[in-house]
Amino acid sequence: MSTPLIAILAGDGIGPEVTAEARRVLEALDLDLAFEEAPVGGAAYRAHGHPLPPETLDLARRADAILFGAVGDPAFDALERAFRPEQAILGLRKELGTFANLRPAKIFAGLEDASTLKPEIARAIDLVIVRELNGDVYFGEKSRRTTAAGLREGHDLMRYDEDEVRRIARVGFETAAKRRGKLCSVDKANVLETSQLWRDVVIEVAGDYPQVELSHMYVDNAAMQLVRNPGAFDTIVTGNLFGDILSDQASMCVGSIGMLPSASLDAAGKGLYEPIHGSAPDIAGQGRANPCAAILSAAMLLRHSLNEAQAADRVEAAVAAALRTGVHTPDLGGDASTQAMGDAVLAAL
Amino acid sequence: MSTPLIAILAGDGIGPEVTAEARRVLEALDLDLAFEEAPVGGAAYRAHGHPLPPETLDLARRADAILFGAVGDPAFDALERAFRPEQAILGLRKELGTFANLRPAKIFAGLEDASTLKPEIARAIDLVIVRELNGDVYFGEKSRRTTAAGLREGHDLMRYDEDEVRRIARVGFETAAKRRGKLCSVDKANVLETSQLWRDVVIEVAGDYPQVELSHMYVDNAAMQLVRNPGAFDTIVTGNLFGDILSDQASMCVGSIGMLPSASLDAAGKGLYEPIHGSAPDIAGQGRANPCAAILSAAMLLRHSLNEAQAADRVEAAVAAALRTGVHTPDLGGDASTQAMGDAVLAAL
Ligand SMILES: CC(C)[C@H](C(=O)O)[C@@H](O)C(=O)O
Ligand SMILES: CC(C)[C@H](C(=O)O)[C@@H](O)C(=O)O
Repeated sequence: MSTPLIAILAGDGIGPEVTAEARRVLEALDLDLAFEEAPVGGAAYRAHGHPLPPETLDLARRADAILFGAVGDPAFDALERAFRPEQAILGLRKELGTFANLRPAKIFAGLEDASTLKPEIARAIDLVIVRELNGDVYFGEKSRRTTAAGLREGHDLMRYDEDEVRRIARVGFETAAKRRGKLCSVDKANVLETSQLWRDVVIEVAGDYPQVELSHMYVDNAAMQLVRNPGAFDTIVTGNLFGDILSDQASMCVGSIGMLPSASLDAAGKGLYEPIHGSAPDIAGQGRANPCAAILSAAMLLRHSLNEAQAADRVEAAVAAALRTGVHTPDLGGDASTQAMGDAVLAAL
Repeated sequence: MSTPLIAILAGDGIGPEVTAEARRVLEALDLDLAFEEAPVGGAAYRAHGHPLPPETLDLARRADAILFGAVGDPAFDALERAFRPEQAILGLRKELGTFANLRPAKIFAGLEDASTLKPEIARAIDLVIVRELNGDVYFGEKSRRTTAAGLREGHDLMRYDEDEVRRIARVGFETAAKRRGKLCSVDKANVLETSQLWRDVVIEVAGDYPQVELSHMYVDNAAMQLVRNPGAFDTIVTGNLFGDILSDQASMCVGSIGMLPSASLDAAGKGLYEPIHGSAPDIAGQGRANPCAAILSAAMLLRHSLNEAQAADRVEAAVAAALRTGVHTPDLGGDASTQAMGDAVLAAL
């Protein structure tokens, strides 16, 4: 591979602060990497009139992997939806075809107190949510119309075809096969046609993975079980909307959304890597944000897009070690700054 | 009012067991009530070939209120969706126009241990979810089709019109006004047209309730906050699908789905009352089910459909008193039978 190009799309709010620390960590690894930055989200809208300007999309396409910060800014709430910061991430996911979103949730040793779950429950959590990212009600036809009776009406089409379900199901089975071999497919097949198709296709794909134990759960029950007995889950595979809800819920079960990374992969392993937390405008610019989720996203980037598993392990170990030294940002009950947390990770590398 | 008629639709699994205890409690109250039973769900399918036979629907229409048990039976999973037990409850909600589902979640004194949340977090929970029940992706057009490319495809249309949103928003504001005056409207307005309409209409209705403090939250964030700081919620108003997920999640935060009742009300106050737990086929017929949710549903029936607030208070106090005597079903860590729990409530009346 020639020098891999990493696109840095830092975005809004705390995005730039946490992404800067992740970049510092990548730079410290003595790998041959090139970096290029571009504006995205509200920041891009202010500068270029669009949350995902053509040059940014172009960089994202050229890059081997994308390190993404966060987008979202309440100042843009009144804009038409197509121009809101969130459209940048939705547009990138769709344009890049990064259909497989991996969201691991596992508690770091010593952080059990941050969870609102009883420590013995929180400690048992070690799961990955595999969320479909290119379909569902996110990308089906949408409209605002007026009915014959003169009423305003909103429509969003939820849709999936078998190819879309099959490819994410495969990622689910592959992920489970590399872990504890248990895959739970979450749907709402007692109500939705899309979910029935989902379930049919997942069952078909299961034939290729006899070593994986497959179960099915309705989404309402899954939301319940994630509180009741989250330790029972290994790998969860689900659609875009249910995955959005359940992965945020799972992240909070481990206590600290500031700790959790994600990878969004296309069919070839190219990926977009982002903390699962948002832009947190309330604490932006204060140096209070936890950069660990961004740093751990960089570790996922090393593992999944650059095939640098050893370097990824090193980064993950450094984060764990840094936390053990007691350097904690405010979300973890400490008073370390974003940069101090980054320094501690660098020192532990 | 002439003698009110209560329809008893006990349904499947543990439905008959828990409903029997709720009926015993209603009968013990010295009110002039008439009861009539009809089959529903899998039980009705076995007997009449349909989960919601015409006679059952007719009884539900004639009745002043409906005490519903639970429906659902894995033996019917292979049937076409229209014939599955779940269609009974969906059909009843739609046919009766019970559009407003109230799901209170509050921990009973002494049951804090049943929650997986830390006791101080669980104890602070006192919220009601007001879930829309007649619209959304539940009742929009559904289809299974084959694309031009020969792929199986599933469609479910998510839709809301302003009247549907307005009437549930009003129930949300009325509910909040009678409680701590805080209403949180949950949607996914950064992605969905239906949610943007939802938000617009909720904001319009807010003008009529200056005493209620309104906030908005995305559903993924709400799922997170229900774990992080559930005590911060007072009243939540949301759509059918998000309400399904969040209310099950909230119920588990208080630790015991076996304790939680629900009311589904139409515009005139007629209602269908059901425990939020399901048919629990794994423990059906064993006398292990907790009847408290069914009994508390009967209390909601007294309050909302029969205008018997005092009797409702009496039943709720009796449940609390019975629990304080230490009579607990297995879900609460005890070994009392369904009937023993019912006896304890009757004794405390
Ligand atoms: C910002 C928003 C559109 C996005 C989503 O709903 O996918 C976010 O919640 C996420 O999970 O990455
Ligand atoms: C049985 C099912 C169709 C139903 C729903 O999704 O509404 C249930 O989960 C509920 O919440 O009452």
